[in-house]
Amino acid sequence: MKKIITISREFGSGGHDIGVEVAKRLGIPFYDHEIVDKAVAESGYTKEFVEEHGEYSSLGSVILGTSAPFDSYYYAEDPQDKIFKIQRRIITKYAQEGPCVIVGRCANYILEKAGIDSFDVFIRADLETRAENVKGRVSLTGEELERFLQKKDHRRRVYYRFYTKKRWGDYHDYNMMLDSGVLGKERCIEFILKAVEEN
Amino acid sequence: MKKIITISREFGSGGHDIGVEVAKRLGIPFYDHEIVDKAVAESGYTKEFVEEHGEYSSLGSVILGTSAPFDSYYYAEDPQDKIFKIQRRIITKYAQEGPCVIVGRCANYILEKAGIDSFDVFIRADLETRAENVKGRVSLTGEELERFLQKKDHRRRVYYRFYTKKRWGDYHDYNMMLDSGVLGKERCIEFILKAVEEN
Repeated sequence: MKKIITISREFGSGGHDIGVEVAKRLGIPFYDHEIVDKAVAESGYTKEFVEEHGEYSSLGSVILGTSAPFDSYYYAEDPQDKIFKIQRRIITKYAQEGPCVIVGRCANYILEKAGIDSFDVFIRADLETRAENVKGRVSLTGEELERFLQKKDHRRRVYYRFYTKKRWGDYHDYNMMLDSGVLGKERCIEFILKAVEEN
Repeated sequence: MKKIITISREFGSGGHDIGVEVAKRLGIPFYDHEIVDKAVAESGYTKEFVEEHGEYSSLGSVILGTSAPFDSYYYAEDPQDKIFKIQRRIITKYAQEGPCVIVGRCANYILEKAGIDSFDVFIRADLETRAENVKGRVSLTGEELERFLQKKDHRRRVYYRFYTKKRWGDYHDYNMMLDSGVLGKERCIEFILKAVEEN
């Protein structure tokens, strides 16, 4: 039985909530913000900084090697790289401890590279559903909100590409992709639970 | 309730069998080879030719415009295009008649363009599962068989790209992606049935 479940998700698709509920019903740990908290403690960066650079590509980190003064390339470890390595260590450790649900941060790729078997899920939804889902958290509306969501996806995509050399959301990297807009969260939860049951 | 279901699939992933069973349990028509038969009747091409050019990119059709003598570009309709248009008409007609399961041939894209709502599924599986699935149909083994499967996928991918301008298997184009290797066919069938149930 594959009880290490990774959940990748479009921003606002409800992947976090789905993961919380799957973990609860299976009685196993759920890791999302916990990864950030641990990375804050290990890195010395603020929570906001880790959240920002631990899952979203920052242009700065890409151009550092070319635009920064020559010597700084050798002196400074890029913050995004530093956070990625810390998160990788935390995620791998969580998975080694036993069954759990891990959200985001290239966990599916990190575990595959570590030779740890996991059931990998991708949650998507249409823009309308996602806009509705984030209404309370984001103070934008209409087209501005859509652009905000698309930018979030884009930066996650670039981040995933940068560290995995693969395409975010490509079906080869997942065992299941669910559209929470059409299916609703409850059905997504049920499908994941059923998927990790013994055959 | 979305009872028009399209199934796209990697070659050998069991998408056809899953679709047959979903249609049977819902008591609705299943269309796969039926599309070929109708296209044979309409086009005048043989069954083998329609199967070959109705879902797989043929290099000939891509280079026709550049390598064929100038005039032939204007005289000849490319056979692949001709078959695509016939299949598009057949698929649209089937969907207009009511609930059904349609396999392959860019049906998800064709119906979207026709403004017909459908539940779109993509079935994948690891190479080992697919090699096992096609054992009786294909007289290749080992690496030769893997290359054969990868070539089939590649030609479907190019075909999809050519007619839709989109990426085959990209999550935006589907409501659900299932790994039949890990989940098994029965669970895939159950998930699709559950997905199209009333909320």
